[in-house]
Amino acid sequence: MATLIAPINHSPVADAEALHKAVQGWGTDEKSVITILGHRNVYQRQQIRKSYHETYQEDLLKRLESELSGDFERAVYRWMLEPADRDAVLANVAIKDGNKGHHVIIEIVSVLSPEEVLALRRAYHNRYKHSLEEDVAAHTSGHLRQLLVGLVSSFRYGGDEINPKLAKTEADILHESIKEKKGNYEEAIRILTTRSKTQLLATFNRYRDDHGISITKKLLDNASDDFHKALHTAIRCINDHKKYYEKVLRGALKRVGTDEDGLTRVIVTRAEKDLKDIKELYYKRNSVHLEDAVAKEISGDYKKFILTLLGK
Amino acid sequence: MATLIAPINHSPVADAEALHKAVQGWGTDEKSVITILGHRNVYQRQQIRKSYHETYQEDLLKRLESELSGDFERAVYRWMLEPADRDAVLANVAIKDGNKGHHVIIEIVSVLSPEEVLALRRAYHNRYKHSLEEDVAAHTSGHLRQLLVGLVSSFRYGGDEINPKLAKTEADILHESIKEKKGNYEEAIRILTTRSKTQLLATFNRYRDDHGISITKKLLDNASDDFHKALHTAIRCINDHKKYYEKVLRGALKRVGTDEDGLTRVIVTRAEKDLKDIKELYYKRNSVHLEDAVAKEISGDYKKFILTLLGK
Repeated sequence: MATLIAPINHSPVADAEALHKAVQGWGTDEKSVITILGHRNVYQRQQIRKSYHETYQEDLLKRLESELSGDFERAVYRWMLEPADRDAVLANVAIKDGNKGHHVIIEIVSVLSPEEVLALRRAYHNRYKHSLEEDVAAHTSGHLRQLLVGLVSSFRYGGDEINPKLAKTEADILHESIKEKKGNYEEAIRILTTRSKTQLLATFNRYRDDHGISITKKLLDNASDDFHKALHTAIRCINDHKKYYEKVLRGALKRVGTDEDGLTRVIVTRAEKDLKDIKELYYKRNSVHLEDAVAKEISGDYKKFILTLLGK
Repeated sequence: MATLIAPINHSPVADAEALHKAVQGWGTDEKSVITILGHRNVYQRQQIRKSYHETYQEDLLKRLESELSGDFERAVYRWMLEPADRDAVLANVAIKDGNKGHHVIIEIVSVLSPEEVLALRRAYHNRYKHSLEEDVAAHTSGHLRQLLVGLVSSFRYGGDEINPKLAKTEADILHESIKEKKGNYEEAIRILTTRSKTQLLATFNRYRDDHGISITKKLLDNASDDFHKALHTAIRCINDHKKYYEKVLRGALKRVGTDEDGLTRVIVTRAEKDLKDIKELYYKRNSVHLEDAVAKEISGDYKKFILTLLGK
């Protein structure tokens, strides 16, 4: 479930007008920006942007970019983008981040549905005049490239059919693949980048049944290099993306200095989807409410905005 | 230009009725089947199939399958399918063909536009409950797998921008890659599976300018194994698909016994697109009209149908 609280009825024209007032003249009325945009769903936000453009012949997004700053600006900017376009921006930033960004690329394409990945790839074309796989491939090499390019290029079958025999065979292949230190990873890459998510879940379950340990735990023991870390992230995102996001939030908030980019990414991309479930997982795991942890670690308008998206 | 001759006005209901008459009772009136279906465009054929189903509660395609036989049946069946669905069928047959089918898979996805490849991948899901890349990957290995999976998964950027510096660098990479006998093909695969077609054409041109030989000719010298043959096919399809199809037709007709599958594939997939240009290329290259070559090599209803699609 979502955490976003949005009114059923709203007037895009009135919202655009109020936002125009908020950004006009000296200083910005950040409170109004948060109150309005922090309570509008994706469709409403696009309506507001359109209405703002029609009335003031100016892109609201560009205006907000120049009026706001720091983590607050980045969060509002990402929040205002249409989801596929936002994913394209996040993926592009992650590609430029090099090794540090791989888990973000993997997270985005492994959590999205197959059709959403296609929408992201189209948005990436429009924005960067390149294909996503082209930019990922140009910045990586070896097995890591094969895995990342495979994940971003894949259009997985979305049906519910399971082949139990295949699950058994491929659980064994994954087991052999992970066990070997300098092993042949081609088959593990093939399985993870081409099979349907339903089939992969069956394979992961079979892995645990046959080998007495979950594949993610097993991988954690071996996740010393970038390739194994990438495998680990992909499997976690496919296996249980809410649990994965809980851990990203935990890591982001526990770090000295807080990882604002990670925090913003999870809140902004999940607020309209399943952030409520992720919040519950967070509380179960940490015995602290996510809102309280967030309130302690960040401050100012950024804090107010993130708490608003969290449904506070 | 197309070779198909289709009337501007036609009545799907009348066509369905005539076809029903043609397939009813003992024996089939193949001439009517050819006269009607051989003169209807893709939209009209779908309308006829729909109208036939509404009137007779039967799938025209299934009926034709059971009434006709041999190469004629296969040609009519492929002709009647919606293009993305037809490509899915052709790709699936090619996957099952093993080594012999690789060039067909490469041809299909390298000639189609990026959006058409996505449509094919969707049609493949619907028909086979698997992803195309999943089935391709399961039937191949090594560099050949990387190349084939990369080609079928790619969603190339479709814009016209060219980066001349990149064309120079990557022409050199391709040259090095092809020169080495047991070389590092990773980079050649990356370039051919991710760059836009416009960029690749610039790279191939640059290759010829800098190395005094076209990349296809150079590859031909080295095309001894399956991987090099696959590279060669991909580059030819991207570089000039009409020239490529002319050669497929030439090969199909010159073979002892004729390659009917190849012949049918090219005629059926290009009749509504650019078969007229391919015909002209054929005449220039062979000093024989394609229709005459076809008439000499095949016979019966299959011959009549193929010649009809050729605009005879």
